[in-house]
Amino acid sequence: IRTNVDYHTSLGVLGSVLVYLSATTLLPLATAVYYGEDVLPFVVTGVVMLGLGYALTRLEPEPDLGHREGFLLVGLTWLVVPLVGTLPYLVAGQGTVAHPVNALFESMSGFTTTGSTVLADISFETHSRSVLLWRQLTQWLGGMGILVLMVAILPELSVGGAQVISEESPGLSIEKLTPRIEDTARALWSIYVAFTLLAIGVYYALQLVGLADNMTVYNAVAHGLTTLPTGGFSPEGRSVEAFSAAVQWAVILFMVVAGTNFALFWYALEGQPRHLVENVEFRSYLLAMGAVGALLAAMLYTGVGLAAVPTNVPGLTGDLEHSIRQAVFQTVAIVTTTGYASMDFNTWDESTQVVLLFAMFIGGSAGSAAGSVKVIRWYLVRKTISRELFTTVHPEAVRPIEHGGNVADDDTIRSIFVFVLLFVVLFALSTVLIYVDSFRVAGLELNALEATSAAIATLGNVGPGVGVVGPMNNFEPFSNASKLYMTFLMWIGRLEILSVLVILTPAYWRR
Amino acid sequence: IRTNVDYHTSLGVLGSVLVYLSATTLLPLATAVYYGEDVLPFVVTGVVMLGLGYALTRLEPEPDLGHREGFLLVGLTWLVVPLVGTLPYLVAGQGTVAHPVNALFESMSGFTTTGSTVLADISFETHSRSVLLWRQLTQWLGGMGILVLMVAILPELSVGGAQVISEESPGLSIEKLTPRIEDTARALWSIYVAFTLLAIGVYYALQLVGLADNMTVYNAVAHGLTTLPTGGFSPEGRSVEAFSAAVQWAVILFMVVAGTNFALFWYALEGQPRHLVENVEFRSYLLAMGAVGALLAAMLYTGVGLAAVPTNVPGLTGDLEHSIRQAVFQTVAIVTTTGYASMDFNTWDESTQVVLLFAMFIGGSAGSAAGSVKVIRWYLVRKTISRELFTTVHPEAVRPIEHGGNVADDDTIRSIFVFVLLFVVLFALSTVLIYVDSFRVAGLELNALEATSAAIATLGNVGPGVGVVGPMNNFEPFSNASKLYMTFLMWIGRLEILSVLVILTPAYWRR
Ligand SMILES: [K+]
Ligand SMILES: [K+]
Repeated sequence: IRTNVDYHTSLGVLGSVLVYLSATTLLPLATAVYYGEDVLPFVVTGVVMLGLGYALTRLEPEPDLGHREGFLLVGLTWLVVPLVGTLPYLVAGQGTVAHPVNALFESMSGFTTTGSTVLADISFETHSRSVLLWRQLTQWLGGMGILVLMVAILPELSVGGAQVISEESPGLSIEKLTPRIEDTARALWSIYVAFTLLAIGVYYALQLVGLADNMTVYNAVAHGLTTLPTGGFSPEGRSVEAFSAAVQWAVILFMVVAGTNFALFWYALEGQPRHLVENVEFRSYLLAMGAVGALLAAMLYTGVGLAAVPTNVPGLTGDLEHSIRQAVFQTVAIVTTTGYASMDFNTWDESTQVVLLFAMFIGGSAGSAAGSVKVIRWYLVRKTISRELFTTVHPEAVRPIEHGGNVADDDTIRSIFVFVLLFVVLFALSTVLIYVDSFRVAGLELNALEATSAAIATLGNVGPGVGVVGPMNNFEPFSNASKLYMTFLMWIGRLEILSVLVILTPAYWRR
Repeated sequence: IRTNVDYHTSLGVLGSVLVYLSATTLLPLATAVYYGEDVLPFVVTGVVMLGLGYALTRLEPEPDLGHREGFLLVGLTWLVVPLVGTLPYLVAGQGTVAHPVNALFESMSGFTTTGSTVLADISFETHSRSVLLWRQLTQWLGGMGILVLMVAILPELSVGGAQVISEESPGLSIEKLTPRIEDTARALWSIYVAFTLLAIGVYYALQLVGLADNMTVYNAVAHGLTTLPTGGFSPEGRSVEAFSAAVQWAVILFMVVAGTNFALFWYALEGQPRHLVENVEFRSYLLAMGAVGALLAAMLYTGVGLAAVPTNVPGLTGDLEHSIRQAVFQTVAIVTTTGYASMDFNTWDESTQVVLLFAMFIGGSAGSAAGSVKVIRWYLVRKTISRELFTTVHPEAVRPIEHGGNVADDDTIRSIFVFVLLFVVLFALSTVLIYVDSFRVAGLELNALEATSAAIATLGNVGPGVGVVGPMNNFEPFSNASKLYMTFLMWIGRLEILSVLVILTPAYWRR
C-alpha cells in the first residue's frame, strides 16, 4: 500500500505494547492457580499477545514516531488491544460474556475505563475469580495508557484543545514535565502505581480494623485496580453498595484523586504543591462536585425532587449522613466518570436522575484518566462566552482568555469549541440511534431518558446510566448492532473524537 | 439613573415604533366593523400604542443610535410591543387567551413569529374574526421587525456571527445593500410586502379556479400574513390540513421563499440573479430540505420507520403523492421554522417525529424571518471542523474558511460556535425545566420527547412540537411558570440569545 503514513512504525510500536501487555496476564494466571481455577484463558491470551506483538515488532519500525503515525498508533492500540483482550472471556466461556459481541463490549469497556458491563450475573457462581480479576485489570492497564495519551501524546498532536493541559499554570508544561515521552510516562505511572497501592492498602486496612468485614484481599485489589483509572468495574454485583460506609468514604476520596490532573501530583512531589491549590481546573472540579453533591443531598434529605413530587427514598429522606454520603458518592462517581454506585439510583426520583445525567457531561480533569468533556474545557467555554459578551459591547477591546496566569490562544479555543460541539452532536445522534434500535428488541423499548443515559454513559466513558442501563443493571439486553455501536462510542469518546476522525480524512492518508 | 447607556434614545425610538404600530390596528378594526364584531379591543390598543409611543418620543432622543442603545432598543422592542399586543386578547376576553399569562404567551409567540399557541379552541365560535386576524397580523408585523433586525441591526452589532450575512458572496454586503438602515429596511419591506400580496393573491386565485373551496378572502389574507414571516398561526383549528392539496403545494412554495435570505431577492431585482444560484447558504438550505423530505417521504410511503416497527399511517403508506406532499410540507414547515401543519404528525411513527425534531435545529436562512440555528451557521461549523481535521494533520497549513468566495474571519467563526453552543445548552436546560415542571400539572406529565420538542419549538421559534404540544394541540395546559418561561425562550431565541445576554452583563451598563 502506497501512502504517506509510515504504518510499519505504528504497527511496530503497537507490537511492543502487546509484548509488554503479555506479561500482565501473569496476575490473573497466578490468581487462577491460587484458587484452583482454569489457567487456559490467560495462557492463551499471554501467548497470543506475545506472538502477535513479536511479529509486529519485526516490521522494522523507524526509531522516531511521526505526527501521523502517532494518530494511527493511538487508534490501533485501542482497537487491537481490546480485541486481543476478549480472549480470556471467550476461552473461559462463562456467562453472557462468552458471546463474541459481549466479549468485545466488555473488553472495550475495560480498556477505555468506561465500566459499562454486559455481565448479566456478576457473581463467583457464574464467573471465576481469575476472569473477574482480568476484567478489573483491563481497566487498570487502560488507565495507564490513557494517562500517557492525555498528558504526553494528544497535547503533542494538538487534539481538541488538549494542549491546554500543558499550558495550565506557568511553567506547568508537559513538554517540560520531562523532556521525553518515556520519562513523562514513567513519572505518571509512578504516581499511578503509588496511588493504586495506597488505595488497595487503605481498603484492606479498613477490614483489618473491623470497619469492612467483606473487604478481602481479593476485593481490595479488585477495587484498587479500578478506582485510579476511573474505571468503575466491580466484581460485586451491587458495586460499592456491598461495602460499609467507611469503605464508601474511602472510595470517594480515591475517586477524587483519580479525577485530578496527575501532573499536579508530580509538581507536588517536586516540592511545588502550590500548583494544586492555584490550579483553576482543580478548583472548578471541586466546585462542580460540591455544587452537584449539595443539590442532590438536599433533594434526597428533604425528599423534595425538582418536580415537586415528594418521592421519599426509603432510608434516605430524613437521614443526614446517609443522604450526604449517597449524594456525594454518586456525584463523585459520575463527575469523575468512575461509574461506581453505592446504591441503586434507579430508586431515586426522576428529577435527581436528570441531575446525574447532566453531571455526566462535566467530566473530570484533563491529565487524568477521566472521560467526558472535562472541566477545563467547560471553564474555557465559559470564559470565551464572557469575553464574547464583553467584546460585543466593546468591539475595540482585546481581552485574552486567561486560565491560571496563562493565555489560551485562538487555535486552542477553537479546538475546544469544535470538540464540545462534536461531542454534543455525536451524543444527540447516538441517543436517537440507541433509542430507535431498542425497539427491535422485544421487551427492551427504552424511554428517552434511558437512551440519553446509554449514549452519554458510553461516549463519555462514564459506565452506568439510568433505568434499563442503571448501575445494578447491564447492557446485555441490547441488540448486537447497538452493542457494537456503543463499543464504537466508547472507543471514539476515549480517543477524544478528533483523533479518530483525523484518521478517516483523505488528507491524512494522501502522499 | 447614571449609566453609560443613553436609554432615553432607545426609548425614544421605541416610541416611534409604537406610534407607527398604532396605525396597524386599523386592519382588525375594519374587519370588526365589516363582520359586525366588537371594535373596542382595537380602539383601546390603538390609543394605548399611540399615547405610550408619543410619550416616549418626548424623551428627546439623540438623532444617532449608538452601539449599546441598539441592544437596548432591540431587547425592549420585543418586550414592550408584545406586552401592548396582549390588549386585544384581554379586552376581547374570548376563550383561554383572556388570561393575562396566556395573552402574553400568544402575543410573544406572534411578534417573535414562533406560532406556538395557547388557544384551546381555534374557531369562530370562540374567537371573533377580528381578534384572530390581529393574531395573524402580530406575526406579519413581527416578521417586518425581524428582517430589519437580522439584515441591518444584528450584523452591525456583530452578534452571534450575524455579520456573515453581510459577507455572503462577493459584494453582497448589507452595509452596501443601501448606505442607510432606513433604506435597507424600505428595500426589504418592499420585497416582503410584494411576496405577501403575491401569496394572498395565489391562495385566493386557487379558490377562484375551483381548487380551494374554503379559501375565502379572509383565509387568504390570514394565511398570507403568516407565511412570509415564517409565523405559522392559522385561524383554522387544523392549520393547513383544512385546505386542498393545491393550496398545500402553494404554501410549500411560499414557505421556501420565506426561509430564503431576502437580500438575495433584492439582488435578483437589481439584475443580479446569479447571487441566488451561487449562494452557498441557499444551496445548503434546499439540500437540507430535500434530504429530510426524501427521508420522511420514504418512511411514510413504505411504512417502515427507523425503529423497524411498521406503522402504517392510514392514507399515507402506499400513496406516493400524499406521502411526498405530507413529507415535504412538514419538512419545509419545520426547516423554515414556519410551523404550519398539513396533517397531525402526532399520528406518525415516533421515529419520523424524531427526524422532525432534529430538523427543528436546522433553521432557515440568515436574512429571513426564520428562527433556530440557521443553515449558514451549520455550514460554517462543518467547514471549521473539516479545517480542524486538516490542520491537525498539517499543523503548518493555513486554510481560510471560505463561503461562496468570501472568507469568514476568526472572530466570526468563534461567534458562531459560541452561539451554537449557547443555543444547545439553553435548549438542554430548558428541556429539563419544562419536563420537570410538567409534573406539577395533573394530567400533563410530558414524556422526554414532548419536553424536548416544547423547548426547541419555542427557543427555535418553530411553533408546534410533538405529542402534547403537537400541531393540532396547544400549550394551554402548562403551568403559568412554564408558559412564562417559554415566553422568555421565544424572546431570547428570537433575539439570537447573545443580544439579550449582553444587556445582562455589568460591562454593558458601566459608565
Ligand atoms: K468509568
Ligand atoms: K414559526
